[in-house]
Amino acid sequence: MNSKATVIKNVNILTMNQNKDIIENGMLIYKDDKIIYVGCEKEFDEDVNLIDGEDAILMPGMINCHTHASMIPFRSLADDYKDRLKRYLFPLEQKLVDKELTYIGAKYAISEMLLGGVTTFCDMYYFEDEVAKAAKELNMRGIVCETVVDFKAPDSEKPYGGIDYAKDFIKKWKDDDLITPGVAPHAIYTNSDESLKLAYNLSKEYNIPFTMHVAEMDYEVSMYKEKYNLTPIGYLDKLGILDHNFISAHTILVNDEDINILKEKKVKVSHNISANSKGAKGVCPILKMKENNIDIGLGTDGPMSSNTLDIISQMSQVGKIHKLFNNDRTLLPSDEIVEMATMGGARVLGLEKKVGSIEVGKKADLVLIETKSVNMQPIYDYYATIVYSSNPSNVHTVIVDGKIVVRNKELVSGDFSKIRKDLLGLKDKINEVAKNL
Amino acid sequence: MNSKATVIKNVNILTMNQNKDIIENGMLIYKDDKIIYVGCEKEFDEDVNLIDGEDAILMPGMINCHTHASMIPFRSLADDYKDRLKRYLFPLEQKLVDKELTYIGAKYAISEMLLGGVTTFCDMYYFEDEVAKAAKELNMRGIVCETVVDFKAPDSEKPYGGIDYAKDFIKKWKDDDLITPGVAPHAIYTNSDESLKLAYNLSKEYNIPFTMHVAEMDYEVSMYKEKYNLTPIGYLDKLGILDHNFISAHTILVNDEDINILKEKKVKVSHNISANSKGAKGVCPILKMKENNIDIGLGTDGPMSSNTLDIISQMSQVGKIHKLFNNDRTLLPSDEIVEMATMGGARVLGLEKKVGSIEVGKKADLVLIETKSVNMQPIYDYYATIVYSSNPSNVHTVIVDGKIVVRNKELVSGDFSKIRKDLLGLKDKINEVAKNL
Repeated sequence: MNSKATVIKNVNILTMNQNKDIIENGMLIYKDDKIIYVGCEKEFDEDVNLIDGEDAILMPGMINCHTHASMIPFRSLADDYKDRLKRYLFPLEQKLVDKELTYIGAKYAISEMLLGGVTTFCDMYYFEDEVAKAAKELNMRGIVCETVVDFKAPDSEKPYGGIDYAKDFIKKWKDDDLITPGVAPHAIYTNSDESLKLAYNLSKEYNIPFTMHVAEMDYEVSMYKEKYNLTPIGYLDKLGILDHNFISAHTILVNDEDINILKEKKVKVSHNISANSKGAKGVCPILKMKENNIDIGLGTDGPMSSNTLDIISQMSQVGKIHKLFNNDRTLLPSDEIVEMATMGGARVLGLEKKVGSIEVGKKADLVLIETKSVNMQPIYDYYATIVYSSNPSNVHTVIVDGKIVVRNKELVSGDFSKIRKDLLGLKDKINEVAKNL
Repeated sequence: MNSKATVIKNVNILTMNQNKDIIENGMLIYKDDKIIYVGCEKEFDEDVNLIDGEDAILMPGMINCHTHASMIPFRSLADDYKDRLKRYLFPLEQKLVDKELTYIGAKYAISEMLLGGVTTFCDMYYFEDEVAKAAKELNMRGIVCETVVDFKAPDSEKPYGGIDYAKDFIKKWKDDDLITPGVAPHAIYTNSDESLKLAYNLSKEYNIPFTMHVAEMDYEVSMYKEKYNLTPIGYLDKLGILDHNFISAHTILVNDEDINILKEKKVKVSHNISANSKGAKGVCPILKMKENNIDIGLGTDGPMSSNTLDIISQMSQVGKIHKLFNNDRTLLPSDEIVEMATMGGARVLGLEKKVGSIEVGKKADLVLIETKSVNMQPIYDYYATIVYSSNPSNVHTVIVDGKIVVRNKELVSGDFSKIRKDLLGLKDKINEVAKNL
């Protein structure tokens, strides 16, 4: 590790600590991977690395609580298709997803997240060892969860093959500082009780994240209503697999009783507004969930669903759609939205002691948002500017675990021109398969 | 005018002509202010200005059908306030808006629009002569409409003062090639029948645009229901002021009968989804309007409402919110959204013969969207990429009326550092007033 401290000066700091303190003309110092000073400008040792923020906004690295990074080679395909998951996505994946595509896709997607100010992501896909490798190479923090489904999957000939894959994968990564392995059954409508329980047991054994698509599809709700007279959440609760490790993605079609269950079982929720709106799925009732102190973070879902992987773009949509749906412009003020994008996400992923806020002792996972671009001025309210004016191109510098990964809007933890070339190299083959679907 | 032709090569052209032809590896040639060739790459004269698009997407300049550009000095103030218009905006404007602020704000806002690929805007504010001057200086095309209200306004001591201002203003600008003057009563709830008719007569006399906020507020609807048992549209129709020059902004709270009236009277609609959602106003029923062949363009509304002024950011919200509200992901495919942002907007503003599509004989109002940034790849569908992946920072080159106004993502038709400095110079005074509101 670099033994010199790094001083970031001339910044306006959104700490996202419990008081949501804002420090104008602030300074931050970190050493190795840890923040050691947050406060006003002060004298500092000359023998440091110095970053002049030039009046940027310094905020905690953003957290993407739900994605399928390696689907990025398919982005912009079949956006407006009906019943796209079963008619298009699953067949596409069966024909095309292999180790190589997963790795190349992950490298590209992680580059996009870093360039957009995301410093931690929670991934759910196949061949997750490739995703972990890609994240590690680019110095990205990740909760990397191997998918389990009941049919032949890209990385397993036999059903539930993901369980065996996950076992090896968990052992390999469980002590890594950047990567936390996890397990991810796809959904109740693609997984049997048996595979759900096997996955849950793994999660319990290692005390690692378990994530799943929950209450996303209308057919999912009607199927469980008809068969068991239960909601998806009710069913999962009856199975006994809901606990503090459970990261419930989407969680749209839920009732008050479901919300009570989520609260009692300390289940966390990834709210993926962009994918849920573009897919016409509905709106997760986060206001009710917030009233019940359920932890909520933001997620993009996969790049075929949302279609970009940064969290900045999610924030304005969260504000707008919830205000609109609840017919009240005063709801969800901007600071609460930035909170979901940072500290909320950290809680959802069980990383709240490490990341999510700018506080002494926490990891140096940091983002500088420049304020020179035309869309960034004037600023009377830093939160409103971030939520309603900024876009991922305003991300200037990104630091993960004390290492600079994006500098002056360019990726420095990887060779982006090679990463891009590799991605584009997949296009012909994908086009060939896609046109016959 | 420059007598050399300009060749733009190595581009993928979204023509937005009637067939929505896409020309991959295309070429465009324009001379003076007019497009003279659109097609495949071909040999060309050496004595030209050459632009290598480097595989960019070349599309028609985007059109912002409704804004209040000069409100940009107030951006990020009071975003989550209740009843903001009357409690906050009007008092703020009465205290602060003068010629200087209007001009400085317009310069900054127009810079933002040009940098974001907007080549034509429709503005509604006070001191519109300042806005026209700012647009002209930056080489922006504009429909510039003077506000008429029944109370003392920033540019008029007496009620309806805007009418007199507008008369002079119209005479001054009516023969300009870039600027079209228009008249803009604020709304039925702030204007008497008399001022509406005076404004309408002006619009008719000069055959110029008339624009107004219509059916945006719930209190507007209930007020006219109680008083006259009429909808806002019904009331305007009864007044006899709806015609082809009428650009109806927002138009959210309308019924089937209203839509019939709009259709019959050839009224145009500016759909401002971002402002309408953030303000919790509701969703304009554009799908029904489209079925009735009503011309629809996209608008941002003012920068206190939406909060950025580019049209790219509007597009994905249009797709997502209408899909969500109608519970159908197949609705409003991306090409129809890009159509609203370009040719649809041109029709709304009565400029369909001049701009909105890339066709020989039309004005060279053009935008190059680069495809090198991480969010822009892979591309299987140009429209989907524009709508769901791009952001205003991908706008690389912008041409208005045959002149380059943005090159390599920088404003070249004005001195942006001065424009920015002037804007920031207003901040202290605004802060002083704002904190007492």
